[in-house]
Amino acid sequence: MLSKSDVKYIQSLAHKKFREEYGHYVVEGIKMVGELISQYPEQLYKVYATKNWVRLNPDLAKNLTCIYELEDFELQKISFLNTSNEVLALAKLPPFKTEILISGEITVVLDQIQDPGNLGTIIRTCDWFGIKNIICSTDTADAHNPKVVQSTMGSIFRTNIIYTDIVTFVKKQQGIPVYAALLNGSSVYTTTFQFPSILIIGNESKGISKEIKELTTHPITIDKIGLAESLNASIAAGIILSHMQLH
Amino acid sequence: MLSKSDVKYIQSLAHKKFREEYGHYVVEGIKMVGELISQYPEQLYKVYATKNWVRLNPDLAKNLTCIYELEDFELQKISFLNTSNEVLALAKLPPFKTEILISGEITVVLDQIQDPGNLGTIIRTCDWFGIKNIICSTDTADAHNPKVVQSTMGSIFRTNIIYTDIVTFVKKQQGIPVYAALLNGSSVYTTTFQFPSILIIGNESKGISKEIKELTTHPITIDKIGLAESLNASIAAGIILSHMQLH
Repeated sequence: MLSKSDVKYIQSLAHKKFREEYGHYVVEGIKMVGELISQYPEQLYKVYATKNWVRLNPDLAKNLTCIYELEDFELQKISFLNTSNEVLALAKLPPFKTEILISGEITVVLDQIQDPGNLGTIIRTCDWFGIKNIICSTDTADAHNPKVVQSTMGSIFRTNIIYTDIVTFVKKQQGIPVYAALLNGSSVYTTTFQFPSILIIGNESKGISKEIKELTTHPITIDKIGLAESLNASIAAGIILSHMQLH
Repeated sequence: MLSKSDVKYIQSLAHKKFREEYGHYVVEGIKMVGELISQYPEQLYKVYATKNWVRLNPDLAKNLTCIYELEDFELQKISFLNTSNEVLALAKLPPFKTEILISGEITVVLDQIQDPGNLGTIIRTCDWFGIKNIICSTDTADAHNPKVVQSTMGSIFRTNIIYTDIVTFVKKQQGIPVYAALLNGSSVYTTTFQFPSILIIGNESKGISKEIKELTTHPITIDKIGLAESLNASIAAGIILSHMQLH
């Protein structure tokens, strides 16, 4: 049974303000919730599942102390998807960090990425390439927005996503090469990347802001053969990251 | 002034059935409609614009024989965007093709790409890399769906998108290498690509279908360093295409 206050609580998590106030965010679907329960139980708060899901996933369901069995129509009521997908979980929002030590080979810095799908895809791609730290400008979309979470496909559980003043952040990392995808840089094919380094990805339509451009030590370009004016921000990120790994 | 029948007509173009019946599709926004008018006038059918757009774009507006000036609220009524963006055009659907001659270095084959954003982004990425022909399985999302069109960012005007039985299509291209993104192929970093060739991109969750897998002569893999289970289909396409260009 789903109470009215449960519905209200979950729906409120569409908004950043309430996610931060309550410390929870929504994760949906068999795959991502399954991963959350089995691999990251310390990040789990509550599970809302259909009777069918509970019947089909006895191993996942048995150790859960906080699970609510719902009718299909009840799950649909709290789902942010067009068609709800058997199970919805509330996960714990990671503690808010503003300070970060650069670790690993590449730190990705996002300069006002606005589309939730792009942000989620960038987080997923970073995770594929083993990048732990993603630094977002404060005007980047919120990573715990339900749409972003869904498109990370679980990578949200494994990456550190930090919102901060990226100009101050990049300035602090003195001596570290700062790569950025620009339309008039060196070819990504011939660049010999140095590590540790920072890779900046800019806004979908405006690109990289002026202040950040000035801090870029190595502008790089993905060679264009055809006629498209630009690449999607997440595609550019994926291509550059794949070439950075090559060296 | 916008008539009721105009509104009905434009709204019906959300559906493939009516796009095919009427031979038109919707293009929105200052950037894409501007490109359509100035560079591809032969593909243009009608323009619906706010008075403000007409005032600000005299060079684009002056030669249009079929333009309707609307109030902002009228444009919002026919727009498929959450917030309408000054101008909406109806473009002519290209003639339906099922037969295609392989031309150029790379032909991209899409095996049941379902997400409109992914499809649009793949079309845009192909255009960036100079790929003209994109062959889609009949269960791939429709390229002239308003969401796909928007995410192509104009590349829909420059690419040939053909829906056909891709198994039959690939079988016909005897002797041409067939590359496909799989989880257990050769590394994309060390593969020496041959041309002309076919690159297959599979469904977002199911990957490449069994029949197409059997036709693949060169399975390739994007080396994984981190923990994400998979990459987004459009990211995989972008990364592989960028490495194919390297050779």
